[in-house]
Amino acid sequence: VNLVLIEQAELVVEGDVRLGGPRAKHLREVLRVEVGSTVRVGLVDGPIGTARVAAIEGEDVRLVCSLVGAAPERPRIDLLLALPRPKVLRRLWPQLAALGVGKVVLTNASRVERFYFDASVLEPREVRAELLDGLSQARDTRVPLVEVRRAFKPLVEDELEALFGGARRLLCDPGYERSVGAALASPTHRAVLGIGPEGGWTPYERALLERHGFEGVGLGPRTLRSDTATIALLAIAHEALRSAAPAP
Amino acid sequence: VNLVLIEQAELVVEGDVRLGGPRAKHLREVLRVEVGSTVRVGLVDGPIGTARVAAIEGEDVRLVCSLVGAAPERPRIDLLLALPRPKVLRRLWPQLAALGVGKVVLTNASRVERFYFDASVLEPREVRAELLDGLSQARDTRVPLVEVRRAFKPLVEDELEALFGGARRLLCDPGYERSVGAALASPTHRAVLGIGPEGGWTPYERALLERHGFEGVGLGPRTLRSDTATIALLAIAHEALRSAAPAP
Repeated sequence: VNLVLIEQAELVVEGDVRLGGPRAKHLREVLRVEVGSTVRVGLVDGPIGTARVAAIEGEDVRLVCSLVGAAPERPRIDLLLALPRPKVLRRLWPQLAALGVGKVVLTNASRVERFYFDASVLEPREVRAELLDGLSQARDTRVPLVEVRRAFKPLVEDELEALFGGARRLLCDPGYERSVGAALASPTHRAVLGIGPEGGWTPYERALLERHGFEGVGLGPRTLRSDTATIALLAIAHEALRSAAPAP
Repeated sequence: VNLVLIEQAELVVEGDVRLGGPRAKHLREVLRVEVGSTVRVGLVDGPIGTARVAAIEGEDVRLVCSLVGAAPERPRIDLLLALPRPKVLRRLWPQLAALGVGKVVLTNASRVERFYFDASVLEPREVRAELLDGLSQARDTRVPLVEVRRAFKPLVEDELEALFGGARRLLCDPGYERSVGAALASPTHRAVLGIGPEGGWTPYERALLERHGFEGVGLGPRTLRSDTATIALLAIAHEALRSAAPAP
């Protein structure tokens, strides 16, 4: 925990907040705060600031927060991700939030098993907890937006513009030669990475995505597990946007 | 499993091999081979080729392998990695092998706990099994070399040349502005990434590494978990070498 995240609903008058549970425990036992200590805090989807420890009452910690200004910029990469296995997705959530992602659209694909959609790892409360965990690691407050689409074709045919706006569309698959860095070398404001399931997109899915503006990119000849590939692609895309000329 | 890996010691006359255990189970139950089927196989640290299923005898599968030619090129990135927590390292092994790494030197650092060195995850047999798992995912046969150094200062002062030869030395820490991509934009044959523990290298450790030729690079302002950071850095470094001009 590098940033203690506070929900809007927890803030009472004058930036006063009373924390219990894991965050209070972390403040008391890891950061070893005392009355008068200062800690870095962030308001979920809001600004980052500082808080003074006003009191320690049993297991609870009372903070007086100073949270003004703008929220951090929304990360410039989105994901269109074929729904991974529940175990893999659980591991991915905090890592995606930590690396930085604006929006994650989880979709069906031929090689996605139906039962993945019933997993608890898609329950909003659990998703949010895992995402906040990653944000507090990375000192960010912007919760990635998450949407689930069980039908792939209508999503690609009708919803891309609404979901991803003018973002550059990259289709990631081991079959493509072009590197992510090369594709993002020209100034790009936002990009969405389409990442297939274990076993990859089918030729039909690739063709549909290509017809809807997705440019094929690959990581080279090595076949990676889908979680490793997702982390690798997200990291490379951020690096490419960071190194490229400023967005127009 | 995208490549069935065979140990040199398992090969008997004329490329004949009898597999039991998980690999035979995988051949029988996932790939559903029959007598006469052809499968892709690789010799550990040797060539990649094909094998014909000669017989299925109970739970065992007998293969006749055709393995000629050179082994794949050794990956061009090495790691000097402050020893991660055992749980994190166990997760990392197959992912490192899959992404591709030539050599991993695990070292002590101020923020590494002593007991990490006693973990079973450093036992050669377990390390090798996890690495082979990642190699068979990525269709590679080159087992990363692994070395452990409990003393950081003598390692940096006396052993870098022997361990990493003429590799470019990059010191990865959130405090540095320069990106990995920028550092590796000039033609580079090999590079070693120095990656600190959870909590980072200390100023003393950074200074020592810098005095011994390590150039500071960072991933930007977000603080990542050490396993996420390691995967991200390795992926970005490979991408940079792949995109840059051919090595001299």
